[in-house]
Amino acid sequence: MNHDDEIRLLPVRGLPEVSPGDDLAALILNTDYKLLTGDVLVVAQKIVSKSEGRLVDLKTVIPSDEAIEIAQKQQRDPRVVQVVLSESKSIIREDAHVIISETHHGFICANAGVDRSNVAGADWVSLLPVDPDDSARKLKVRLGELAQIDVAVLITDTFGRAWRQGLTNAAIGVAGLSPLLDFRGQQDDHGKDLVATVLAIADELAAASGLLMRKTARIPVVIIRGYSFDTSSEGASSIIRPRERDLFR
Amino acid sequence: MNHDDEIRLLPVRGLPEVSPGDDLAALILNTDYKLLTGDVLVVAQKIVSKSEGRLVDLKTVIPSDEAIEIAQKQQRDPRVVQVVLSESKSIIREDAHVIISETHHGFICANAGVDRSNVAGADWVSLLPVDPDDSARKLKVRLGELAQIDVAVLITDTFGRAWRQGLTNAAIGVAGLSPLLDFRGQQDDHGKDLVATVLAIADELAAASGLLMRKTARIPVVIIRGYSFDTSSEGASSIIRPRERDLFR
Repeated sequence: MNHDDEIRLLPVRGLPEVSPGDDLAALILNTDYKLLTGDVLVVAQKIVSKSEGRLVDLKTVIPSDEAIEIAQKQQRDPRVVQVVLSESKSIIREDAHVIISETHHGFICANAGVDRSNVAGADWVSLLPVDPDDSARKLKVRLGELAQIDVAVLITDTFGRAWRQGLTNAAIGVAGLSPLLDFRGQQDDHGKDLVATVLAIADELAAASGLLMRKTARIPVVIIRGYSFDTSSEGASSIIRPRERDLFR
Repeated sequence: MNHDDEIRLLPVRGLPEVSPGDDLAALILNTDYKLLTGDVLVVAQKIVSKSEGRLVDLKTVIPSDEAIEIAQKQQRDPRVVQVVLSESKSIIREDAHVIISETHHGFICANAGVDRSNVAGADWVSLLPVDPDDSARKLKVRLGELAQIDVAVLITDTFGRAWRQGLTNAAIGVAGLSPLLDFRGQQDDHGKDLVATVLAIADELAAASGLLMRKTARIPVVIIRGYSFDTSSEGASSIIRPRERDLFR
């Protein structure tokens, strides 16, 4: 039984509550888990946003007429709706239950990533990082400085999908690995060309880590060990389907 | 360093080429990998379809006028387009490049799961299993009979997504575990209610195994060990978003 080629998903426990200005790399290295060169470090967006101070006190938010109108229809807090609108480039769908919008980064998701859960204080919400690819790169560099290791870093959030119920964890920031794996031009085991086969590796890694990052468990960081990845300077922004080739906006 | 709670992804190598009528459970148990009670066994749709004889000889297919028209526009084999139409309940989008349709099961994907790759013979294509949940249940039962083990079984295929590039592995058949994990009504670490949080666990497990099931590698089976799941009699059909609550058809 040869298990040399297995992949391991390791939950990182014991991180403290993260506050604005905290050095996430130092906090992660301070746990009992020893990161190794070649690991993929997967970090939940929430703690990245907290360390970067991407938090909004709803008491400071003045909702627009549009926000008030949507909030009335959806029976939500108009201040939260205002923050969602501020974080959105455009609204993709909006009905009595949900706002699906395109964030300023280009991600399409519910509520533009604005979230009340796991944020201290009833009147506070968290936003997505301003530039999650840059957040991932900085974390990768900082881990290298502090521990002399070369790892890939993913920042993830849970997104809904068209056509299928439930959320899955997806990559919103990537540093050090190729988010997409392109098999076009290669052949299958029967010598036929593989047509249109590009695998969204970063999202599969994110989903795998999602199995450990449950909403109520305090596991915002997962180490993926044993996955051989292609290095790349591309970020998660390369996963976004260009508008002109997207049939579902 | 406590790794009791890690999840392991084990690639199963050494399966022979699968043919119609083959006993997949026996073939899997015949490899060097010892399945254990509590494992999640993830099986690529292609070998399930082969074992069930879900293969079509294109030489026997007579394309309709509609198939010929679409094929001309997309510069494809009209016989393949005919098979895609036969496997579809309705067409969701269709342009110069792709047919996105709803399969008879209710899955929304490109080409209704019809695939030329990794099928022997230039003129043969594979179809999705008729009832992948039933295929998963039968495989689970058969593994229990042959090896006295109780495992969960997933059958997966790679699907594209709206808004994001690349394919990810997704669950099309599920037996023995709850495909969706519902946190609604529970509270987060700060005592706030978790709103609208349902995790698509079966798809996260499928995506995790997709990291090992690469298109050109001969790894159609992956064992996921160490993941604690809720048992359930629900299948992958429960993941399909009901039409009336789907904003993207």
